[in-house]
Amino acid sequence: MTSKGACVVIGAGDDTGGAIARAFALEGYTACIVRRPRHTEALEALASRIRDDGGAAVAMPADARDEDAVTALFDRAEREAGPVEVAVFNIGANVRFPITEMTARVYRKVWEMACFSGFLMGREAARVMLPRGRGSIFFTGATASMRGGPGYSAFAGAKHGLRALAQSMARELGPKNIHVAHVVVDGAIDSTFVRENLPDVETARADDAILSPDEIARNYVWLHKQQRSAWTHELDLRPWKESW
Amino acid sequence: MTSKGACVVIGAGDDTGGAIARAFALEGYTACIVRRPRHTEALEALASRIRDDGGAAVAMPADARDEDAVTALFDRAEREAGPVEVAVFNIGANVRFPITEMTARVYRKVWEMACFSGFLMGREAARVMLPRGRGSIFFTGATASMRGGPGYSAFAGAKHGLRALAQSMARELGPKNIHVAHVVVDGAIDSTFVRENLPDVETARADDAILSPDEIARNYVWLHKQQRSAWTHELDLRPWKESW
Amino acid sequence: MTSKGACVVIGAGDDTGGAIARAFALEGYTACIVRRPRHTEALEALASRIRDDGGAAVAMPADARDEDAVTALFDRAEREAGPVEVAVFNIGANVRFPITEMTARVYRKVWEMACFSGFLMGREAARVMLPRGRGSIFFTGATASMRGGPGYSAFAGAKHGLRALAQSMARELGPKNIHVAHVVVDGAIDSTFVRENLPDVETARADDAILSPDEIARNYVWLHKQQRSAWTHELDLRPWKESW
Amino acid sequence: MTSKGACVVIGAGDDTGGAIARAFALEGYTACIVRRPRHTEALEALASRIRDDGGAAVAMPADARDEDAVTALFDRAEREAGPVEVAVFNIGANVRFPITEMTARVYRKVWEMACFSGFLMGREAARVMLPRGRGSIFFTGATASMRGGPGYSAFAGAKHGLRALAQSMARELGPKNIHVAHVVVDGAIDSTFVRENLPDVETARADDAILSPDEIARNYVWLHKQQRSAWTHELDLRPWKESW
Repeated sequence: MTSKGACVVIGAGDDTGGAIARAFALEGYTACIVRRPRHTEALEALASRIRDDGGAAVAMPADARDEDAVTALFDRAEREAGPVEVAVFNIGANVRFPITEMTARVYRKVWEMACFSGFLMGREAARVMLPRGRGSIFFTGATASMRGGPGYSAFAGAKHGLRALAQSMARELGPKNIHVAHVVVDGAIDSTFVRENLPDVETARADDAILSPDEIARNYVWLHKQQRSAWTHELDLRPWKESW
Repeated sequence: MTSKGACVVIGAGDDTGGAIARAFALEGYTACIVRRPRHTEALEALASRIRDDGGAAVAMPADARDEDAVTALFDRAEREAGPVEVAVFNIGANVRFPITEMTARVYRKVWEMACFSGFLMGREAARVMLPRGRGSIFFTGATASMRGGPGYSAFAGAKHGLRALAQSMARELGPKNIHVAHVVVDGAIDSTFVRENLPDVETARADDAILSPDEIARNYVWLHKQQRSAWTHELDLRPWKESW
Repeated sequence: MTSKGACVVIGAGDDTGGAIARAFALEGYTACIVRRPRHTEALEALASRIRDDGGAAVAMPADARDEDAVTALFDRAEREAGPVEVAVFNIGANVRFPITEMTARVYRKVWEMACFSGFLMGREAARVMLPRGRGSIFFTGATASMRGGPGYSAFAGAKHGLRALAQSMARELGPKNIHVAHVVVDGAIDSTFVRENLPDVETARADDAILSPDEIARNYVWLHKQQRSAWTHELDLRPWKESW
Repeated sequence: MTSKGACVVIGAGDDTGGAIARAFALEGYTACIVRRPRHTEALEALASRIRDDGGAAVAMPADARDEDAVTALFDRAEREAGPVEVAVFNIGANVRFPITEMTARVYRKVWEMACFSGFLMGREAARVMLPRGRGSIFFTGATASMRGGPGYSAFAGAKHGLRALAQSMARELGPKNIHVAHVVVDGAIDSTFVRENLPDVETARADDAILSPDEIARNYVWLHKQQRSAWTHELDLRPWKESW
């Protein structure tokens, strides 16, 4: 199968990001999967699993907070995997501290991971997509994108900032045929973290009470396939049983 | 093909509602299409066109503002077309008057058409779906669902009320396995009204600058197919060129 | 003291509405207090208490859902109490039923009380204020103005509709020098209902854990006094201890 | 007059921030006014003008983006001006660039000025207020706090982040008797910048078509005076003629 081009996924861990990368790979895109260099081994393993499933995937470790690294990443993706048709930002940084215990270091780091990196990805994706006049740029949001809560000054701040980025880019780039969307994932995801911390995760999974990464991913693919006379900018995803 | 059950579409005119009915019919549901009795002829013609395309459709004229009529409608749909698996409310009533020129009659009528009817549909759909513990109930929203504007006291009032209904029902019925969603259609639709009033509609259509009813419809089908670990309650749809 | 004109308060019970009427009366306006005719006795008693406190107040019983009655009310207020400078809508109708138990009668009644009446008041206030090019029109909102919840299809629907009315009127009438605002009261009010139903209301009151009607009222007076270079359209009010 | 304590205003330029400082000084607080050290002269001149008007004011130049400087600032305010009863964050950083022309340097700087500094102020204010169990912490927002727009990725991002901070802090600190509020200033302010760029500013001012800093300031004082049974977390301020 000829590749349809590149799909860059920043924050391609073993859960949501990995599932999104895999889903686009199975649609015919070459998944360019990105995590920090210290996770290179896990990244290579993920790329391997995607290839085993019949998709194309290349591990492209990079620090998404580093401007030059992100520029180099998009150049590499274009060179090695073809025109970037889809870029997905999926880095979270969920921390919670009472306001007086929140250090400037943590506050800044959460923003750099969950918002500034998103800006770098969004800008570099726009840079390579604009000359071609097409592409999709998607950002993963959370409940904290919509409201602050006790202890969430840093996380909600970063997520609100990311949502403002998505909205600003959508309003600027939509009329240039670039589809920018923000997906609000509201609820526990069937992830390594949740599996290790939620009691009785098997029951929850069997009951669809936690978000399946593969189902989340199917919605990203759907957004990318929307015909441009009816584009979605924002949608929420939550398990049927979730209280909200 | 055995029918997958009934899909009731209230407000099944020749544009969005009709396209939604057709899309679900082509998915294997029996479209039970509803407009006021004075539009019976148009309704029959639509049913006919859907059948010509290979779908199942039954015209079920009814006044959606009449409680007994809506109850009878759902009973008839269940009897003639099988279990109602999907119910879509798609009645608009876009009027605009300066506040001092808005009559109580018009204000009330807009609410009855665009909000009260939605309540009746939502409740009757819940009534038949709850015992089976499954189903989808979707409401069509608009820009006026999210903000008021000069002259829009009645229309925005009704649309805000409908959105509150959708949100209240989603929070109540989601945990009972009934998927309630609200679709915010933001922009001109390629409808009879727009075709008659927008200059150069051909260009707009060719350019995807107005919403295609078929593309809107595809998103309703998508919502219905979402697996329940990742349900969407609200999404917006607008043309790529739309300023918002 | 010469009256500064009329302040019409619709929904002037013994709690919030009464406190708002009293506060404007003490500012020099003639409070025209309105409840349904069957509450005329309570209304007269409230007028009496306001006069005892040194304010001017006239009981003007009327059914706020009746278009002619509301028109007559504003004519009477203008005739007997001077130009209507302030109009406040304060009727609630908080009911809660599972969706399948919500009758069309109750759904409609809640809307008529909490939304349609607000439209009638808003329009009639605009009618008398526009020729003078000044005035304040305030609507009392609630948590349900902002989000729906299980069982709240009717109440949230009416409150959302009222908010849409306030926003539409503000956008239309602001540039005509009429100040339209929406006050979101979020929490239990120190009202007859709460006093009868909340255990240990004395403690809550002493602790400022429930909203004081007089403090709510002070904020309405503040809004009216805002100079027009810095008008507020929407504010929330909640007790310091309230979780939200 | 004995001082009622300190009111720290970060971003106390000649317009809104200066007016807020002056208003609290005239209420009996010692205004601790803060700008970057390179504006010390202007800061001293403002302090002087406030003292001429009968208020107490101390220029406390500091770089609000520097954690140690902000900690030192609050220590100095407590030492020299008494317990900090009010802290106001009023730094803006309105820049606008197409996404591909937004540099990482500018994006980061806007966030540091308009959001990170707000976090530092909020945290340090909480640190000194919590042991006393009282105080007010106010943040100045803008239209960009609520929505993104073309070119506003940085500014809207920072303002959204600041709003998330305010909301998170309000939910955490309200129940500890600290009043946290967010004021959305929506429209052109009668500021040096506007005076130099808006044609015919005299007419706009005479017509109240631009926000008066003094009127904005009066609303901050009002918020501080709200009794805690009815606290506002968020309000908007805009000129009567403003389209929104």
